[in-house]
Amino acid sequence: MEVLVPIADMRQWSRAQLQRGARIGFVPTMGALHAGHLSLVQRARQLADRVVVSIFVNPTQFDNQQDLATYPRTLDEDLALCRQAGVDVVWTPETAEMYPDGYCTFVEMYGPLTDKLCAIARPGHFRGVCTVVTKLLAVVRPDVAIFGQKDLQQALIVSRMVADLNLGVEIVVAPTVRDRDGLALSSRNRRLTPAMRAKALALPRGLELARRAYRGGETESRKLIEIVAEEVLVNEGVDLDYCDVVSLPGFQEAERADDRCVLAAAVFVDGVRLIDHVPLAGEAIPVAIDDDERA
Amino acid sequence: MEVLVPIADMRQWSRAQLQRGARIGFVPTMGALHAGHLSLVQRARQLADRVVVSIFVNPTQFDNQQDLATYPRTLDEDLALCRQAGVDVVWTPETAEMYPDGYCTFVEMYGPLTDKLCAIARPGHFRGVCTVVTKLLAVVRPDVAIFGQKDLQQALIVSRMVADLNLGVEIVVAPTVRDRDGLALSSRNRRLTPAMRAKALALPRGLELARRAYRGGETESRKLIEIVAEEVLVNEGVDLDYCDVVSLPGFQEAERADDRCVLAAAVFVDGVRLIDHVPLAGEAIPVAIDDDERA
Repeated sequence: MEVLVPIADMRQWSRAQLQRGARIGFVPTMGALHAGHLSLVQRARQLADRVVVSIFVNPTQFDNQQDLATYPRTLDEDLALCRQAGVDVVWTPETAEMYPDGYCTFVEMYGPLTDKLCAIARPGHFRGVCTVVTKLLAVVRPDVAIFGQKDLQQALIVSRMVADLNLGVEIVVAPTVRDRDGLALSSRNRRLTPAMRAKALALPRGLELARRAYRGGETESRKLIEIVAEEVLVNEGVDLDYCDVVSLPGFQEAERADDRCVLAAAVFVDGVRLIDHVPLAGEAIPVAIDDDERA
Repeated sequence: MEVLVPIADMRQWSRAQLQRGARIGFVPTMGALHAGHLSLVQRARQLADRVVVSIFVNPTQFDNQQDLATYPRTLDEDLALCRQAGVDVVWTPETAEMYPDGYCTFVEMYGPLTDKLCAIARPGHFRGVCTVVTKLLAVVRPDVAIFGQKDLQQALIVSRMVADLNLGVEIVVAPTVRDRDGLALSSRNRRLTPAMRAKALALPRGLELARRAYRGGETESRKLIEIVAEEVLVNEGVDLDYCDVVSLPGFQEAERADDRCVLAAAVFVDGVRLIDHVPLAGEAIPVAIDDDERA
């Protein structure tokens, strides 16, 4: 496995692969890798001849400098995981080369994908995501790039952006990976103490309870959102950042839920921000729910 | 010479060239080709193995729908000129494929390159330019792209954008080509009647008079701008859109001119917008000036 740092080295490697006719699969990450990322790597291996993982904590997508400062960084462990997973190249570009003095170009998206949920809760976040993904794709020039469905809005935005800008990369969205207790894997989970983690489980539990309510006939979005809010807000130190029902593929808010809808939410658990969502017509989230108590 | 229309065809051609190790030179145009464009093609032929010219009147860079509607379109003539000039591929993408329903992604630039001159006079213009150039480069994937210096601000913006987004394309800026009377070549010149053309010459004449004044010791930008304004505004039906002294490479407005400065102006001649500029330490613009009269 090669570890590349300068942009020119990464570009040269990719160009050589292209001239050989090799297909490149790409998994862009911010490091602190977990089994969710590794599932994306496995998918990339299935779809391409060579796999590149980038590790770059992108400052332009953080609306909160404290969040950027405390974002987990575990490079040695990440490299070991990539080596085990059969990655060909890990690219770890430097911030000073990605955003040199005088940097002034950004990729922005307008419309329904960027006027709700994380786009409102984190101003500038998706501008940073679109910009860095454009840059990473321009250097790596993959045939296919894999994004996790956990970050649903991001995956939809990146897909739209790649199509709009004719970037010529196939975007594959791979399923959310959950721990056995139902919590969606996230690099930020590392910041949870056992007590915080217990409280964090209210998020997938609330989503699952709402999904069951929908399956039981409740289609009023306001009611589904209330189920999540009640489940989450009973925990001290837990705040609900947003919770909304949006319809796919248009990503419109829906007052009345139907099978095309997902219920998406973001919470703060003692200051750590976690997001998750459930397709209302999808499979159950495997959380422990005391059914008798809630009957 | 091949003429390609679908994005997929253009992409496939470029990929095949890349796999053969051929260098691609690219000249993006809006058609209505003239000797200025052909000089860019010649430069591309010197710098690359294969030359692609795109012809696409990009709607997103027009702030004025009337200007878009009346922009000259001369495709048959353009194709003949390209064939004579040794172009390998002319790519004429369709607007409906470049900007499909729901299109929502734009490339934007902030800072000194986009807070003055044409950026103020034509709101959204450079957003459209940055967006379409990103798209064209993503499809053609050239090694080198050639832009004309006549559109100085555009050339500087594109260079900065390509560097910022790591697009991996060398941007070459080729000199302004002028007619024998000194008027900078522009597709819009086709819209000038002989009477309008006579008035349009006040633009290069004003710039040249100001350049001479600077060489004669006048360094106050306000005075240099006045020279252009007086020369231009004496003509009925001619309006000055802007005139400014900016310093390179920072593209800052300069109250006092020095050898790093250019004097740039835009005029409307009976509604037709023309731009031009002169480096104050550069060569003379070959305009007829009655020196006795102005002694």
